Amino acid sequence: MTSAETGGSAEAEGSAKAGSPAGGVGTGGASFHEMWRDLAAIGRHSGTGGYRRYAWTGADADCRAWFADQARARGLAYEVDRNGNQWAWLGAASAADVAAGDAVVTGSHLDSVPDGGAFDGPLGVVSSFAALDELRRRGATPAKPLAVVNFGDEEGARFGLACVGSRLSAGQLTVERARELRDADGTTLPRAMERAGYDPDAIGPDPDRLSRIGAFVELHVEQGRALDLSGDPVGIASAIWPHGRWRFDFHGEANHAGTTRLADRRDPMLTYAATVLAARERAEQAGALATFGKTSVEPNGVNAIPSLVRGWLDSRAADQETLDTVVAAIERAAVERAAQDGVDVRVTRESFTPVVEFGHALRDELAKILMRAADSRPAAGGRTGGAREVPVLGTGAGHDAGILSATVPTAMLFVRNPTGVSHSPAEHAAENDCVAGVTALADVLEGLACR
Amino acid sequence: MTSAETGGSAEAEGSAKAGSPAGGVGTGGASFHEMWRDLAAIGRHSGTGGYRRYAWTGADADCRAWFADQARARGLAYEVDRNGNQWAWLGAASAADVAAGDAVVTGSHLDSVPDGGAFDGPLGVVSSFAALDELRRRGATPAKPLAVVNFGDEEGARFGLACVGSRLSAGQLTVERARELRDADGTTLPRAMERAGYDPDAIGPDPDRLSRIGAFVELHVEQGRALDLSGDPVGIASAIWPHGRWRFDFHGEANHAGTTRLADRRDPMLTYAATVLAARERAEQAGALATFGKTSVEPNGVNAIPSLVRGWLDSRAADQETLDTVVAAIERAAVERAAQDGVDVRVTRESFTPVVEFGHALRDELAKILMRAADSRPAAGGRTGGAREVPVLGTGAGHDAGILSATVPTAMLFVRNPTGVSHSPAEHAAENDCVAGVTALADVLEGLACR
Repeated sequence: MTSAETGGSAEAEGSAKAGSPAGGVGTGGASFHEMWRDLAAIGRHSGTGGYRRYAWTGADADCRAWFADQARARGLAYEVDRNGNQWAWLGAASAADVAAGDAVVTGSHLDSVPDGGAFDGPLGVVSSFAALDELRRRGATPAKPLAVVNFGDEEGARFGLACVGSRLSAGQLTVERARELRDADGTTLPRAMERAGYDPDAIGPDPDRLSRIGAFVELHVEQGRALDLSGDPVGIASAIWPHGRWRFDFHGEANHAGTTRLADRRDPMLTYAATVLAARERAEQAGALATFGKTSVEPNGVNAIPSLVRGWLDSRAADQETLDTVVAAIERAAVERAAQDGVDVRVTRESFTPVVEFGHALRDELAKILMRAADSRPAAGGRTGGAREVPVLGTGAGHDAGILSATVPTAMLFVRNPTGVSHSPAEHAAENDCVAGVTALADVLEGLACR
Repeated sequence: MTSAETGGSAEAEGSAKAGSPAGGVGTGGASFHEMWRDLAAIGRHSGTGGYRRYAWTGADADCRAWFADQARARGLAYEVDRNGNQWAWLGAASAADVAAGDAVVTGSHLDSVPDGGAFDGPLGVVSSFAALDELRRRGATPAKPLAVVNFGDEEGARFGLACVGSRLSAGQLTVERARELRDADGTTLPRAMERAGYDPDAIGPDPDRLSRIGAFVELHVEQGRALDLSGDPVGIASAIWPHGRWRFDFHGEANHAGTTRLADRRDPMLTYAATVLAARERAEQAGALATFGKTSVEPNGVNAIPSLVRGWLDSRAADQETLDTVVAAIERAAVERAAQDGVDVRVTRESFTPVVEFGHALRDELAKILMRAADSRPAAGGRTGGAREVPVLGTGAGHDAGILSATVPTAMLFVRNPTGVSHSPAEHAAENDCVAGVTALADVLEGLACR
């Protein structure tokens, strides 16, 4: 991808500085570098350096305005669907304009986890616009309508449920349940949408829109080190591990920390602590993942034994059986320790996503397209060129692509993450790898949509 | 105490209902029952049933207005000292009016821990006014000035430091440090005082005022079960255990909970959990107390390994050496586990109060007064009467009396707590025991101040 490789005023900066990973790919609209720079400041916390782009907040509105600007600057037809997802069309005035199964769609999300990195989500959206620019630069003529999409509320940081935008569209989240979602301040999702200027009465399944899509390809920064270990800048997703969230409520008895005899206590913090350690052990034994990353304590006073400790378990495994085994073992450990502490424990599964195997047909087509493109191009320092096979890898992270895959032929491209760190201000991808990602996505769009 | 024992329209209600523990003791001003009822609604959270009376908030202002009303209704001289503590004088127009070492002062505090009970603090203040009423009923003539005091911000729920009002007055908290205290929203103590209508520029040591006090007696609900186990309604404090607060900061690395291999993690939640369990074990071995009742997690996302977990340790023991040993052992356990988890741990002592031995002279005088009073009164169901010795007990809880004892002859009376539960909406004392507490306090004031 020479335009980027040689057009080098852009500097590779650490993601902690929300750096600009790639130079000017684009010929219409802003270059990759410019897009990255414009996004960098939005919703960034000055203290942590991390992003706080939560659904339907001001930072989210700024990200959405940026998306609409990018669409307009490229002469793409812009629309928002009933669930607040944004679309930018090339070769169609709107989804309604597209024949069934005809559209090739790419995109990702712009929202973030609390204090997230710059790449998780935005890299996919920025790369999508840059790939369209690259197609234009190549003089490729799309035979099918192309679209870039920004799915709303992918991370679920505000309302506790991930992929709300794509779930609603795919009918995997009922309108009733969506209406009941509340943030930490008690604001409901409908109220939040309304305040942000969107119509919450419109939300619901969108089968007609999804039926127009013949292929959805999401590019995403890898959130592990598989590509780093294999030495590849870009890979293709095989499957998303089954994963879920379980809320553990440990009810004890509030009491004075300075006067209550240890023997008289019913301290739920002890049960919580033992459960955290048990979760790690059980996951280790089974080769699965288990994390307690969020807690809430009542009354949360230094000199008060808590009445209630809540802990949220995030657990994932390569297959359903392993996941079930691990979570059951953690629950058992919690219940056993609770009896010892005089604590009452209740476990609620808050969300669950079964294993997602991406369709082999589209996955194999992507592999073929990328091999062919690499063959046709001189090797550039061994990074993007050469006839090396593109690695296929599983992931523990959920994505909108995983939601859509139930309805639409779907595939994912991953861009190398040299440290594997994600959901952190330190999340990072090298400039050259981002450029390789844009090239690969352009190759895929060209292969799928152009004559 | 016949007026209360027979004047029985008051009902003994559970403290969860902020019940009215005693009937009309008073003859001037509101009865115990009426005072209790008026306080019951202030700062009570409708969801938890607990009290949230934090320093310089609206609930605190309501408590303070109640105190001023009680003073006025009894014709007591009302004043606020430079640190916002409230005083109600009988036999003096103000502290300035009192000869050195002449005043006999009683009182406690009206603020609460988060979701605290009705008794911790208010029982002492209400009993103080009721005891003055009882003296009047008895026709006792004070030969010395008497005062009721409400010390501000005893619990430290808002600014993280306990006994701010008494510490400032006693010179145990510097003005500089007080000015830097901030609540969770970043509001400083001076700003909070100013908003509440108080002058933060006036705060500082008040040796002149304290020099007027010949004896300070604080009545408080017991926060353990010693009196319940010994079968006594009222006891005298021997000592307050040395106690302190230590903040443990566990710094790890934020990362994606769904994709980061367990081996690649630096998860501070694990270190925190292990430290919580170690604290309990070490305290148990040493016969001390150790509690983690407050935590704060960053970024606190379900699918994010935390970058930082903070836990606050509250630890207490009967003597300094034991406390030092326990805290050092907990620190050691934290540091060892931190190395295993790739986590960095820093421990900060946020506050510390050495052992407080209440002066034996005043303590012995109280015991004598109470014995003599019991002897002179017919036994009432074995509860308050008879020549039984009044038990003397230590406590792990800090009190304004502990702060003042460095400067002023100080003693404490405890009222039986049948469950030992405190710092909780379930905190409770029986009506008869509260009546016995008022009687005992009146006996003490009469013995110390009346001819």
